[in-house]
Amino acid sequence: MADDVRDEELLASVPGAACEGVSGSARAGLFVTFEGGDGAGKTTQIALAQAWLEEQGHAVVTTREPGGTELGVAIRQLILHGDHVAPRAEALLYAADRAHHVETLVRPALERGDVVLQDRYIDSSIAYQGAGRALDAADIESISRWATTGLTPDLTVLLDVDPADGRARRGGRGGEDRLEREADDFHARVREHFLALAARDGERYLVLDASLPREDIAAAVRTRLEQTLAARR
Amino acid sequence: MADDVRDEELLASVPGAACEGVSGSARAGLFVTFEGGDGAGKTTQIALAQAWLEEQGHAVVTTREPGGTELGVAIRQLILHGDHVAPRAEALLYAADRAHHVETLVRPALERGDVVLQDRYIDSSIAYQGAGRALDAADIESISRWATTGLTPDLTVLLDVDPADGRARRGGRGGEDRLEREADDFHARVREHFLALAARDGERYLVLDASLPREDIAAAVRTRLEQTLAARR
Repeated sequence: MADDVRDEELLASVPGAACEGVSGSARAGLFVTFEGGDGAGKTTQIALAQAWLEEQGHAVVTTREPGGTELGVAIRQLILHGDHVAPRAEALLYAADRAHHVETLVRPALERGDVVLQDRYIDSSIAYQGAGRALDAADIESISRWATTGLTPDLTVLLDVDPADGRARRGGRGGEDRLEREADDFHARVREHFLALAARDGERYLVLDASLPREDIAAAVRTRLEQTLAARR
Repeated sequence: MADDVRDEELLASVPGAACEGVSGSARAGLFVTFEGGDGAGKTTQIALAQAWLEEQGHAVVTTREPGGTELGVAIRQLILHGDHVAPRAEALLYAADRAHHVETLVRPALERGDVVLQDRYIDSSIAYQGAGRALDAADIESISRWATTGLTPDLTVLLDVDPADGRARRGGRGGEDRLEREADDFHARVREHFLALAARDGERYLVLDASLPREDIAAAVRTRLEQTLAARR
């Protein structure tokens, strides 16, 4: 059998990839993603931001990954309810969900001029994959960016959550058995990866302490949204 | 909304992709793929090669892409029987099928020392995508190679078929309406892409004229398999 080659060669040697589907044309919408560990309060903050934006007269679309489309829901069923799925197959299935979601739902909304508030995007894939270490996070990012033809959020709100707080919010009772400690370690690594992404591309991120009162967080999100919208007028 | 970036940046900028899952360890098996347009006679030739190899005492696994596993069948159902699937999502779904197939079926067979005879592999994805021109064939290749951690066939038998012959074998009656001419043009482009792949990596390919008598083709395949097996003893 022929020799295998290293991953960096597999993804780095695209000779002359064309850019069909990559359109730099003006779009009026605003793409805002919410990231953070489980229990960070993303759902609540998206609802509060939506209410405020609609009061201001904006058309708002709220959505999520994975599973923001019918195809995405079917893909999740395959991953969650089938037998063992090979790790690379799972990563590619999530990327397929993302490609379909962006092309059929997110981009059309942005082209109409809507504000899209999305629960999780590429950052979550990178942070969770990086924390789990089954695959290289840089590969996951590269494939996700191909899947979305490079669609980057205008603003990413990172709700930074301490793993122990996150567990409490998820309904845990703070016990310290082995499984819970392992889970805390995993969530601590997820958190580190989110913070590293925010540090890498600071202008795009608003990092907020998820343990603050929800109204304080909502006010900080509103202030940043106002600035971002004003800068685009 | 942030500027989109070009595809070559999306896939070419993997900073330090690790190589988990890429194992260069010795495997005893032989990986043989059969490629060619519809109607080229791949199924027949795989059956004849299997019979001969088993007579020689080899353990043989025959399989196909897409759809060589249960997950793969489910993925095909999603693609073929759902509503519109975004082109990049479709490409990623096929890559997921391939990743799962290689990890759970092909690699274990090769590690046992079996001969794997496979109907279609990466070359088909490249040739059909290249002929359809919806996406860049180099991107499809890059993603497929990541999906398979670079697993390359020891031998690829390309059954080269003239589009008109292929149509006749598929059951067409040789009429010349517009749809048939368009189909012929498409299959001519597929053929060109297959031949270009064979030219690029000549040692791996055995290119045979699919219009020859099937026993002549089978004899040529046997001769090449004998050589390949002898070289590995």
